[in-house]
Amino acid sequence: MDKFMKPIQVGLLGIGTVGSGVFKVLRRNQEEIRRRAGRGIEITMVADLDVARAVEIVGEGVAVVSDARQVIANPAIDIVVELIGGYGIAKTLVLEAIAAGKHVVTANKALLAVHGSEIFAAAQRQGVMVAFEAAVAGGIPIIKALREGLTANRIEWIAGIINGTTNFILSEMRDKGLDFAAVLKEAQRLGYAEADPTFDIEGVDAAHKVTLMSAIAFGIPVQFDKAYIEGITRLAATDIQYAEQLGYRIKLLGITKRADKGIELRVHPSLVPAARLIANVEGAMNAVMVQGDAVGTTLYYGKGAGSEPTASAVIADLVDIARLHTADPEHRVPHLAFQPHTLDAAMDSLPVLPMREVVTAYYLRLRVADQVGVLAKVTGLLAEAGISIDAVLQREADQVSGQEPTSAESPAVPQTDLIILTHETREGLMDAALAQMQQLPTVLAPIVRIRKEELA
Amino acid sequence: MDKFMKPIQVGLLGIGTVGSGVFKVLRRNQEEIRRRAGRGIEITMVADLDVARAVEIVGEGVAVVSDARQVIANPAIDIVVELIGGYGIAKTLVLEAIAAGKHVVTANKALLAVHGSEIFAAAQRQGVMVAFEAAVAGGIPIIKALREGLTANRIEWIAGIINGTTNFILSEMRDKGLDFAAVLKEAQRLGYAEADPTFDIEGVDAAHKVTLMSAIAFGIPVQFDKAYIEGITRLAATDIQYAEQLGYRIKLLGITKRADKGIELRVHPSLVPAARLIANVEGAMNAVMVQGDAVGTTLYYGKGAGSEPTASAVIADLVDIARLHTADPEHRVPHLAFQPHTLDAAMDSLPVLPMREVVTAYYLRLRVADQVGVLAKVTGLLAEAGISIDAVLQREADQVSGQEPTSAESPAVPQTDLIILTHETREGLMDAALAQMQQLPTVLAPIVRIRKEELA
Repeated sequence: MDKFMKPIQVGLLGIGTVGSGVFKVLRRNQEEIRRRAGRGIEITMVADLDVARAVEIVGEGVAVVSDARQVIANPAIDIVVELIGGYGIAKTLVLEAIAAGKHVVTANKALLAVHGSEIFAAAQRQGVMVAFEAAVAGGIPIIKALREGLTANRIEWIAGIINGTTNFILSEMRDKGLDFAAVLKEAQRLGYAEADPTFDIEGVDAAHKVTLMSAIAFGIPVQFDKAYIEGITRLAATDIQYAEQLGYRIKLLGITKRADKGIELRVHPSLVPAARLIANVEGAMNAVMVQGDAVGTTLYYGKGAGSEPTASAVIADLVDIARLHTADPEHRVPHLAFQPHTLDAAMDSLPVLPMREVVTAYYLRLRVADQVGVLAKVTGLLAEAGISIDAVLQREADQVSGQEPTSAESPAVPQTDLIILTHETREGLMDAALAQMQQLPTVLAPIVRIRKEELA
Repeated sequence: MDKFMKPIQVGLLGIGTVGSGVFKVLRRNQEEIRRRAGRGIEITMVADLDVARAVEIVGEGVAVVSDARQVIANPAIDIVVELIGGYGIAKTLVLEAIAAGKHVVTANKALLAVHGSEIFAAAQRQGVMVAFEAAVAGGIPIIKALREGLTANRIEWIAGIINGTTNFILSEMRDKGLDFAAVLKEAQRLGYAEADPTFDIEGVDAAHKVTLMSAIAFGIPVQFDKAYIEGITRLAATDIQYAEQLGYRIKLLGITKRADKGIELRVHPSLVPAARLIANVEGAMNAVMVQGDAVGTTLYYGKGAGSEPTASAVIADLVDIARLHTADPEHRVPHLAFQPHTLDAAMDSLPVLPMREVVTAYYLRLRVADQVGVLAKVTGLLAEAGISIDAVLQREADQVSGQEPTSAESPAVPQTDLIILTHETREGLMDAALAQMQQLPTVLAPIVRIRKEELA
């Protein structure tokens, strides 16, 4: 009984941007948080390689060490918060903390998307909680919504803008009509993109996050290795403009969907109808749409990154643990929403589908010779493949190629862009049709293919 | 231990639209729900005055009775779901269920907004949970977001479209340029408004909901009697159009805000910048914006009513109880997010402010004589009151009054609309300024005043 009266003691592994946000918010709002949790929640120990900087942040009264294992070994610590990141030492420390009987809170999507099964199993065996609200969409309580708020539903699909860096870049590309490379530089200058932005712009970060949401939504293990991942680095301003003319915005979406034969799990740029709320999520903001069979469409919007928004999620997990750690460990909220012993069987009945099995609609842009019969040939190939066309936008001839002609028919044929929106089809069929179209002598450049989601 | 293996048994009081949705979804998704909750959740008893109809819905194997007390008295029932509605018998039955040691789930916002303090105190004494996700914004898990997802935050304000009927009517008024009365009839015909729509169109339903959110956000008791309530019945299509020209939409918002001297709690039509996501929430959909000091702005969107969306919330509560009822009752999620013994003290330090103390911006429409000096007089009165002006829209003279002139200056003076947007001021100051403006002989009709929220 006495245990409940004294504050929960938290040890922090790593006190960078997020960690200092956690410290600051916990201290600033300590009275409200205590009133909510029923007991105080205090950071009493911090491990960071830069001890001097850590001391500067936390001041007197908090033990600062350089060795994370001292935090884990401290019997007074109830919860370990891992904010180191990456798959390496973070994994070892999380597993050691679990083995030491500590509850764990982490913002580490990469770690959980890749090693989640091992970590959650270890936690289950020890009867401790591993909470990770901060791992997906920063301050938006989307893990809680999926895992608890929507438990009545058979989830049909999730589509999210879950990487602020890329959404900022896409917003800027649209606003300013600039191509990717120019905007990336600007984003780096403003601090919206890191010096090495690879994980963001190549879609890897979003894939980590959608992998976690997929597992929680469908009751399957995390399977990051099966995610299809395509970033935004090859997007041209031209396509953003054509999409706009057709009533669409281009967003980098993390999508996971229940299909007939399994689960789709994919990250790629997508055309989204401009009328959807999610199409109007601008700048570095995040938003996640969830479609459930009972609830219909829901959407969750907020800041997906940053010191205090991420801290908001970390602290919510701390309060959750303070409130619920006494609940029967066999039945309290499972790490991945579903009882762990049921996950492997679901993996067999709900396999993650290879990309060729995914069904979606498409935007195609073909650089073609502006001559009679081109449209007929292209649409003929689509028809043969059984792919039906939703809309065609044919531009007037806008330039004479200065390049070496790819066709023998004319040394300097007028060129134009042919834009086609298709109805839904299987990606495998589209791949084959694209390969054939690409062979046409009147198709003068690599065909641009962007997927399209109605999200209705 | 055996208790966890057998299904949770649920008794339903009332099986109308929501009740039959709960039954249907629980049955359809029973396997997924069991995988999430760790045990089955089954409706084994239903009380409804229309026994024959109830039997038709639930079929064989479920006991149907006309007397709700038989459900409450049944020792096999773990959770009682109250879907009767209203303040009368529903209150008695909820209190009896609590007294009998049952957990309670209810969608009854009216009951909780008015009698919540009594009900939650009784539940606290008995160590049972009273869950009410379905009471606010239907299927959107907003109670969970506020009570658990945002626990790190000092909540600054909440603004929500939390009544689908009025949002449908406002969307139609805007789309079709029609006045309130015409659209209401259409809404009734389509089933979006009830035969007696008073609670919806007068803002009472929204006020019940925002009262609950206010308590959860700020850690104060429910105080419905102190809410300011203004509905949409006097809204004219003209004002929707003027607002549009100025870059705003008009929405019925439930607002609760932490101000310097206390808490604002109010429901009224509001101008909202058209660029905000919430301004683009159309038809019967709901959305709630929450501003927290750490997380910043978040938004939650979905269906606010209907059989299965509401059932989604009721069932989420059932699963919550199945998962968490074993947690220490003193510390598990408090009914109103904050530990109950702290609520009364907070009521003293955070009183609900009278409307005259509320600070907001305003849209004013004055029907004025189109003559020199009118604008100067009106703006002069605002300046004297210390109210600064954000924008003025003066229409050209558009008609000659056919009415009896209220001014002695001219028997048939040309009239025009003068629209003023003000910056923020105290409502009491605006009331006084309006009273003075209304006295001006050049002001020819009652001044229209609509509040304006930037929600930034």
